[in-house]
Amino acid sequence: MVAGSAEAEAGRGSGDGHLVSLAEIEAAAGRIGGVVVRTPLIPDPDLSDATDAEVRLKCESLQKAGAFKARGACNFLARLTPEELDRGVITYSSGNHAQAVAFAAGLRGVRVVVVMPTTAPKVKSDGARRLGARVEFAGTTSEHRRVRAEEIAAEEGLVMVPPFDHPWIIAGAGTVALELHRDWPAVDTLLVPIGGGGQMAGCAAALRRLNPGASVIGVEPVGAPTMRRALDAGGPLTLSHIDTIADGLAPTRAGDLTHAHAAALLDDVVLVEDEEIRRAALHLIMRRKLVAEYSGAATVAALLGGRIATAGRRICAIVSGGNLDTSLLGEILGTDAAASPAAH
Amino acid sequence: MVAGSAEAEAGRGSGDGHLVSLAEIEAAAGRIGGVVVRTPLIPDPDLSDATDAEVRLKCESLQKAGAFKARGACNFLARLTPEELDRGVITYSSGNHAQAVAFAAGLRGVRVVVVMPTTAPKVKSDGARRLGARVEFAGTTSEHRRVRAEEIAAEEGLVMVPPFDHPWIIAGAGTVALELHRDWPAVDTLLVPIGGGGQMAGCAAALRRLNPGASVIGVEPVGAPTMRRALDAGGPLTLSHIDTIADGLAPTRAGDLTHAHAAALLDDVVLVEDEEIRRAALHLIMRRKLVAEYSGAATVAALLGGRIATAGRRICAIVSGGNLDTSLLGEILGTDAAASPAAH
Repeated sequence: MVAGSAEAEAGRGSGDGHLVSLAEIEAAAGRIGGVVVRTPLIPDPDLSDATDAEVRLKCESLQKAGAFKARGACNFLARLTPEELDRGVITYSSGNHAQAVAFAAGLRGVRVVVVMPTTAPKVKSDGARRLGARVEFAGTTSEHRRVRAEEIAAEEGLVMVPPFDHPWIIAGAGTVALELHRDWPAVDTLLVPIGGGGQMAGCAAALRRLNPGASVIGVEPVGAPTMRRALDAGGPLTLSHIDTIADGLAPTRAGDLTHAHAAALLDDVVLVEDEEIRRAALHLIMRRKLVAEYSGAATVAALLGGRIATAGRRICAIVSGGNLDTSLLGEILGTDAAASPAAH
Repeated sequence: MVAGSAEAEAGRGSGDGHLVSLAEIEAAAGRIGGVVVRTPLIPDPDLSDATDAEVRLKCESLQKAGAFKARGACNFLARLTPEELDRGVITYSSGNHAQAVAFAAGLRGVRVVVVMPTTAPKVKSDGARRLGARVEFAGTTSEHRRVRAEEIAAEEGLVMVPPFDHPWIIAGAGTVALELHRDWPAVDTLLVPIGGGGQMAGCAAALRRLNPGASVIGVEPVGAPTMRRALDAGGPLTLSHIDTIADGLAPTRAGDLTHAHAAALLDDVVLVEDEEIRRAALHLIMRRKLVAEYSGAATVAALLGGRIATAGRRICAIVSGGNLDTSLLGEILGTDAAASPAAH
C-alpha cells in the first residue's frame, strides 16, 4: 500500500469490484496468446550482485511492435464487434501504443489512424506507418493528441482505442505478470514503469491475486510523477510541466482507473532521475545485450540507483519497450560506462 | 550433405562412432542446466516476411558471459577431476571462449589463465578479467595463442580447455539445439555460425538425431572460409590469410573433430560478406532490440543476403554472441538503416 493513502487501504479490501479481475486477465491471455510473444525472463547477474538480490528482466522490448502495448491493443480489438472493426479504429499515443494498435489492426485488416505528438521519436512514427497506420501529428501533450483523435474519430466514425485507462487495455497488459508468475513463481517483488499506468494496473491486478505476498512497485521519472502525485493527492491531477527523456512515461495525468489500481494494489511508487535512466539503458545494452528505450529502462534505473530495498529479494524488473531512436543509442553509448556494475 | 564430399555421404551412415552422441549432449545438458541460461527463441517477423519463411532467433547473445561458449566451458570443467580443478585451467581464444572459461572457473573457484590475441576486442578482454581470469596476450592468430597457452600450461601445470575441437566442448555447445528442438519441434532448418566449428558440430549432432529430416547449414565469412575449404578438400587446411570483421569466426584452421561432424552432418556451408554481417547486426539492434556481435549476426546475414533457399521453411538462426565493443556499436549505427527490411 502506498504510504499516506487511506483510500489505498480501503480499496485493498473486498471492495475492489472496479478493479480488473484475474479472470479478465486470464481471458485476455487466451485471446492474445497466439499473436503476441511470450517474452523471455532473463537473469541479470550484474544487477543481482549490485543489489544483493536475485534480479530477472521481463523483456517486453522483445514483444511484437517492440513494447508491452501489443498485449492491450490485441485484447481490445479482440473484444470489438464485426461492425466496430468495419468502421476502423483510432488512437492517440506517444508512440508505442500507436504502433501496437497499428499492429493489432493490421492482423485483422482493420483501418487504423494514430495521432502522435509532433515530438514523437521517428522510430515510433515510422514504425506505425510501416504497420499500415495513417499517422496524424498533434501538439506535444497527451491532452493535445486526445482532443485531435476524438475530433477525427467523430468525423470518420472510428472506434477509439484508449491508450491505458480502459479495462480491456489493462487486462491485456496484465498478461505480462501471468507469464512472470508461471516462469518464476518465487518472485516476490515486481518493478513496473508507470506512464499512464496500464501496465502497472494489469500487472498488479494479476500478481497480487496470484501471489498476495508479492510487492508491486511502480517507477516514474522525477520529471513526470503523475501517479506519485495522484496517490499523494487521493486522485489524478493534471501536471502543468513534464520533463523527462522517457517519452513513454510522460503523460500529464494518470488515468482514473489506473489510479484506482495503484491506490488499491501498489506497494510504492519510486522516482528515478533521467541520468539514472541513461545509465540503466547503457547497462542493458553493454551487459545484457538488450536495446531498451528510456521508458523501458526505468525499472533497472530504480535498482541501479538504489531506490528500493533489495537485499535477499527475488525481483523482476519489466523492461517495457525497446523502441529507441538511432540517435539516442549514440547518446547512450556516450554515457559513462564505468557507472555500470561489473558483468558476468 | 555437403556437395562434392564423398566422405560426407559415407560419414552420415552408421560409421559415425567418432561423432559426439545425442546421449553425450543430453548428459551435458544435465550437468550445466542450473548454471547456464535456457536462452529464448524470438520470432523475427521482418526476416520471416523478407524470406517467405518462419524465422526465429536462438539468442545465445543472452547467455551467461554473452555467448554460447559458456555451455561448452561449463561442461568441460564439470568433467574434470578434483585434482585437475586444483591445478587450474588455461585456454586460448579470440575472446568469447576465454570469458566462458573464466565464468566456468569462477563458479568453482578455480584458477584460470586465458591467452587472447593482441587484437581482441576490449569488451572481451575486460570481460575475462572481470570474471577473474589472468589475461595474457599473444600474436593475432589462433596458432600464436595456442602455442603460447601450451607453453604456460606446461610451465604452470594448468589443464588446457580447448576452444572447440573436443567432445566435451562440442557436447556442451550442442545443448543449444536440444533447447531449440524442445521449444520448436517443427523447426526444419538450422543456421549456425562456424568459427572453429564447436557449436556447429554439437548442434548438428543433436538436431540430426532428434529430427533427421532437418537441415543444418553452417555460415562463415567470405574472408574466413575454414570449414568450407576443409569440406572441399576433404580435411582441415590452414588458411594463410583471414580477413573478416567477425573476430569470433576467424580461426585459421577448422578442427579435425569439428570437420568430421561437418562432413557427416551438415547440409551446406554458405559464405557471407562483411557488409552483410554489418547490416544484419544493425537489423538485430534496430528491429529486434538485440545487441549481437558480428560473429553472432552471421546467420541473419545469410538470410538477409539470400544465401539459402528459404521459402516455406521453418528456420532457426542462432545469434551466437553479443559481445560487441562500444566503438563497433557506433560503426553499426552508421550502416545504412534502409538496408534492413520493414519491421513488425
